Amino acid sequence: MTGNSIGKSFTVTSFGESHGECIGVVVDGCPAGLKLSVSDIQREVDKRRPGAGPVSTRRAEEDRVEILSGIFSGRTTGAPVCMLVRNRDVDSGAYEKIKNLLRPAHADYTSRMKYGGYNDYRGGGRFSGRITAGFVMAGAVAQKLLGTMGVEILSHTVEIGGIAAGHSSLAKIRKSDVNPLRCADAAAAEKMMKTIEQARREGDSLGGIIEGMALKVPAGLGMPVFDTLEGDLAKALFAVPAVKGVEFGAGFGVARMRGSQNNDSFIMRNGKIQTATNNSGGILGGISNGMPITLRVAVKPTPSISRKQQTVNIGAMENAEIEVAGRHDACIVPRAVPVVTAMMAIVLCDHALRAQLIPEVIK
Amino acid sequence: MTGNSIGKSFTVTSFGESHGECIGVVVDGCPAGLKLSVSDIQREVDKRRPGAGPVSTRRAEEDRVEILSGIFSGRTTGAPVCMLVRNRDVDSGAYEKIKNLLRPAHADYTSRMKYGGYNDYRGGGRFSGRITAGFVMAGAVAQKLLGTMGVEILSHTVEIGGIAAGHSSLAKIRKSDVNPLRCADAAAAEKMMKTIEQARREGDSLGGIIEGMALKVPAGLGMPVFDTLEGDLAKALFAVPAVKGVEFGAGFGVARMRGSQNNDSFIMRNGKIQTATNNSGGILGGISNGMPITLRVAVKPTPSISRKQQTVNIGAMENAEIEVAGRHDACIVPRAVPVVTAMMAIVLCDHALRAQLIPEVIK
Amino acid sequence: MTGNSIGKSFTVTSFGESHGECIGVVVDGCPAGLKLSVSDIQREVDKRRPGAGPVSTRRAEEDRVEILSGIFSGRTTGAPVCMLVRNRDVDSGAYEKIKNLLRPAHADYTSRMKYGGYNDYRGGGRFSGRITAGFVMAGAVAQKLLGTMGVEILSHTVEIGGIAAGHSSLAKIRKSDVNPLRCADAAAAEKMMKTIEQARREGDSLGGIIEGMALKVPAGLGMPVFDTLEGDLAKALFAVPAVKGVEFGAGFGVARMRGSQNNDSFIMRNGKIQTATNNSGGILGGISNGMPITLRVAVKPTPSISRKQQTVNIGAMENAEIEVAGRHDACIVPRAVPVVTAMMAIVLCDHALRAQLIPEVIK
Amino acid sequence: MTGNSIGKSFTVTSFGESHGECIGVVVDGCPAGLKLSVSDIQREVDKRRPGAGPVSTRRAEEDRVEILSGIFSGRTTGAPVCMLVRNRDVDSGAYEKIKNLLRPAHADYTSRMKYGGYNDYRGGGRFSGRITAGFVMAGAVAQKLLGTMGVEILSHTVEIGGIAAGHSSLAKIRKSDVNPLRCADAAAAEKMMKTIEQARREGDSLGGIIEGMALKVPAGLGMPVFDTLEGDLAKALFAVPAVKGVEFGAGFGVARMRGSQNNDSFIMRNGKIQTATNNSGGILGGISNGMPITLRVAVKPTPSISRKQQTVNIGAMENAEIEVAGRHDACIVPRAVPVVTAMMAIVLCDHALRAQLIPEVIK
Repeated sequence: MTGNSIGKSFTVTSFGESHGECIGVVVDGCPAGLKLSVSDIQREVDKRRPGAGPVSTRRAEEDRVEILSGIFSGRTTGAPVCMLVRNRDVDSGAYEKIKNLLRPAHADYTSRMKYGGYNDYRGGGRFSGRITAGFVMAGAVAQKLLGTMGVEILSHTVEIGGIAAGHSSLAKIRKSDVNPLRCADAAAAEKMMKTIEQARREGDSLGGIIEGMALKVPAGLGMPVFDTLEGDLAKALFAVPAVKGVEFGAGFGVARMRGSQNNDSFIMRNGKIQTATNNSGGILGGISNGMPITLRVAVKPTPSISRKQQTVNIGAMENAEIEVAGRHDACIVPRAVPVVTAMMAIVLCDHALRAQLIPEVIK
Repeated sequence: MTGNSIGKSFTVTSFGESHGECIGVVVDGCPAGLKLSVSDIQREVDKRRPGAGPVSTRRAEEDRVEILSGIFSGRTTGAPVCMLVRNRDVDSGAYEKIKNLLRPAHADYTSRMKYGGYNDYRGGGRFSGRITAGFVMAGAVAQKLLGTMGVEILSHTVEIGGIAAGHSSLAKIRKSDVNPLRCADAAAAEKMMKTIEQARREGDSLGGIIEGMALKVPAGLGMPVFDTLEGDLAKALFAVPAVKGVEFGAGFGVARMRGSQNNDSFIMRNGKIQTATNNSGGILGGISNGMPITLRVAVKPTPSISRKQQTVNIGAMENAEIEVAGRHDACIVPRAVPVVTAMMAIVLCDHALRAQLIPEVIK
Repeated sequence: MTGNSIGKSFTVTSFGESHGECIGVVVDGCPAGLKLSVSDIQREVDKRRPGAGPVSTRRAEEDRVEILSGIFSGRTTGAPVCMLVRNRDVDSGAYEKIKNLLRPAHADYTSRMKYGGYNDYRGGGRFSGRITAGFVMAGAVAQKLLGTMGVEILSHTVEIGGIAAGHSSLAKIRKSDVNPLRCADAAAAEKMMKTIEQARREGDSLGGIIEGMALKVPAGLGMPVFDTLEGDLAKALFAVPAVKGVEFGAGFGVARMRGSQNNDSFIMRNGKIQTATNNSGGILGGISNGMPITLRVAVKPTPSISRKQQTVNIGAMENAEIEVAGRHDACIVPRAVPVVTAMMAIVLCDHALRAQLIPEVIK
Repeated sequence: MTGNSIGKSFTVTSFGESHGECIGVVVDGCPAGLKLSVSDIQREVDKRRPGAGPVSTRRAEEDRVEILSGIFSGRTTGAPVCMLVRNRDVDSGAYEKIKNLLRPAHADYTSRMKYGGYNDYRGGGRFSGRITAGFVMAGAVAQKLLGTMGVEILSHTVEIGGIAAGHSSLAKIRKSDVNPLRCADAAAAEKMMKTIEQARREGDSLGGIIEGMALKVPAGLGMPVFDTLEGDLAKALFAVPAVKGVEFGAGFGVARMRGSQNNDSFIMRNGKIQTATNNSGGILGGISNGMPITLRVAVKPTPSISRKQQTVNIGAMENAEIEVAGRHDACIVPRAVPVVTAMMAIVLCDHALRAQLIPEVIK
């Protein structure tokens, strides 16, 4: 039942449960000499904190980052970096009541089948969105490392509840956290907010789409034939709860394109080889081509809704109804935005190390 | 520059190039005692052979499977199974002429950047669709193993060039190889064929979508938080050249659904817990829930088109034009169908072994 | 710079430094349902505590075990188990003074070369014997799991400073912790103690040999050709600081034996196939044969001695002299005994899971 | 039942059986651009060919190396290199007769227990010394790579049947293949030869010790705390059939040394930091220190002896006698010498790549 580590040269191991002691992560493979402080990590963790307004959970998550190892005199030492946030403000009562009622679209049933009923079901345990706090801590380290190469990663909300954001400039995307929806298109964000508000009033929830981009990634990252950049990015992104689809560049749109439309022409630009368009999403043959890496992630509506739902009582093995109380986001999409950034950073950092584009000692 | 192995308990290692000696694969982790013959493998390999009609490449691929190890007295021994097909009918001349012209949407540029120009560029080398012959051989072993559990995997074409197939019964999908498009909807298949024919006449190519299904997969496969079933399936599928998107169940459609629509209700059916709908694609929390696993894969139009394209001559570092001659499929989608099946089988077999649902010795 | 995880199905990830926050470990792959309490772990950790008398370090290590994850209602959940002990009573001053003087036979020089001088040198950092507290915590979990199969692991001191223990019964070995030397031969233990005392008085240190045994290991553990039982045990044991040799069964003695002496005859005993002798140490072809697994580990004398030694000042790049103050064991061998047990348990547990001899859910 | 791959950045996957089609190996992770020809590999494979005289097996092994992939225009491409030698001159008859008689000290019993009787038992199958032909092919690639760094690996016989070789100069060790015993001390070699001859006449066999050395290995190889250089070297060496012990530097001798004797003083020599002695075998804290890496490997007497032995008939489950006919080495030690070199090369190459001391593209 292993499966809690990802990455070959930059290896992230996740531990912790929603209502246990803490959510934590061990990063093995970080080069020595990287300047790293608690505040570097805290800044990223704060981004996934519930925003103001109607968007997200009312659980007061004040995640204070602790670094337990791997840092000395303000720099990484080359030893594993263990980081965690403690769980506070935990109310497990609500879960106890519905212990035998399988919450639809949650992992209640599958985890029970897999772990013989021994899994920690409180607050979703290992399947809670809270585990992504660990991903974000690891991603913060990865982003600092990628920063030494000039790589920048940007994620933003491009669709919620059927409302699509219009095209935005990089400048606007960089500032997309000005609204709690992490959407660069302010007008669309306003509409999204209203739709979410309405869904919440109706005891319902909404899904959406997040776009991730990595800028200034050099050509040459990715290890065909199996450890392709798309494959490793997709695997990491599917570890984020609620993700049901991942596409690169033109994505599913390629199904309706002809080769002559989809093929990105190579052109000389400022003495460098680039492509005129970027339908490939910056990846050809599983290897980065120097253009921006672009991907889109489909996030399903939060499974926890207050409406009455049909389900099964697994204790009695009979049909039943369930109303999920507790504090839940009506739309998880905005909080998943920094997690998409983190997963991209983890994978790109792993591949940059594998391609020897980040040295083993940072000077 | 590793990256040519996939799977933890059922490990597939790929080797070989399009115009080298052979395409091969080593399967490590196959339990002992499985009845396995060359014809079991050959049957699957034949499925990716170019069909009749206008669909696919005219290169006469008569891939004859050789098993080099791991079989004794008609059964697997528990030792690694090495299999290969020799390359015949190879014409590398066409590639030599355009050696310095980067073929748009191909890996010419990225492989040159990564391997310093030492990669075998003939016929695409490691980036050729031919490497999937190895995937299919490994997938054939995986399918035989999964067969001992009753698991069945089905893949079929659901969209080409904008023409979508209608819903088909399982019976029809099982027989979808009656037409060279691997499409269960005969009427749609006919239209697809005409569209492909036209694209070919115009020196162009088409993309499409493949649906994969795994039936009778027991609940409990998948290893959260990183080795989720979605994550490992997606990673394997992105190893198939030309795949640019992977989605499960309702996929990108979840972005426009409310929780009350997307959540699959649990219901008792014949004494078993099932879900009323299957928007999750049979996977919750990264773990199979006993429902059919369903996924969709976006395949880009074949990059090799005979139309004149804009590109760069990397020798001269200047803009240039290219016309890609040689034998190419106008639509690779149908030939990718058995490869999708193979990748699904490899991943599900790996997870069945990890979950101890296949024993180490088959009796 | 990964390298801090070991095991494929029972994966142990180590973190922490001697004078940092803590020494910790994450165990991924522990089946669900195993009864596990802090006291199970504490009991093993206490065994590596400095004994009374002249043997070991005077640093007061009161290692109190904390479990941060993976346990719910007194049982493992199938999720990663993170455990740690805090560092207390830390005196880093002594190390600051000799920062540029390379301590002979320590990792000062190699770690500086590898980590560019960024490693945490205080108290040896990652190279301190203290990291083995983490190994012992993981080993305690492994021993509980192996206990469900009836496997018992025993380690004991068989030689120190040239004084060899005589052959002892299993009963005596089981009680070998009655003396602080972990030696089953009381008379030899007494002599060892005097020799150690004398070495300490002379500002010197002693090495020795530990024997490890695993009883009731079923036949079939081990994964040739590379993941042999000998290979994986040896690799794990060489992770224990100061180990310079590992041998199985007759070990280096085989060099002077003829085949007719060394070959263990098979015999029927109580209806079972066994071997008359056990020169193989219970392993043939890298796979356990059902006989006791026996191995011996050579432990070098503690590098830290108070005698004046010749060395180099790496700041000035010139020859220098060093006297290593601080609290050090004159003989580390007895404290390494529970660590040998732990490493054996970790490896055997990993292989028992890989061979499906431990189920994924313990009932 | 995986376990046939070793190495993280230079990954070697073994396949094939003694009396099957071939013995092969896939090397994944070899940088692109390395000049490599069949003759580079053949040269090393020839070294493990049976020598003249009474030493080794009379089976005429004319192992002709075939390279199936990964080479183009005389250089590696960065793609996996698959190599094999065909099995010829195979006589499986002798094995059929004794199929149910467990050969003492062989893997007959353990492989049958593990693989449920499905393993290929002919000629030892996967447990034959012949699999090391694959190791040697991979080792030849590794040696070429290490050669680009100036690293040289030397192995030689230092003891057979109780006869120890005297100390020899590096020059003599480099030429130790002048005698079929691979022993640098000609006088000792002569005595060894006579002893082997006598053992053979008496239907018996002899064991011995091989010393391996790696020269000019830079400081910094090795990945603590688990992927230590000692640990990874030992694991690789225990994959060689018949190895029962591995020690580094002073090895088991450390048990009788005091710290003041064993500690290697650091000294300045020609402006470089070195150690006055090399009891550490060139490894401190699991990391190379720039001194020669030295290790010793204990090889057990060939299990196959023609003398009558006591054993069990596993078909009848009763005691029985066995006489192993067939062609066997009376002493396998000399033929294992190039295999020790190969294993050392594989591990050092893996660690050199992990430490980024070999680039991903060789120019």
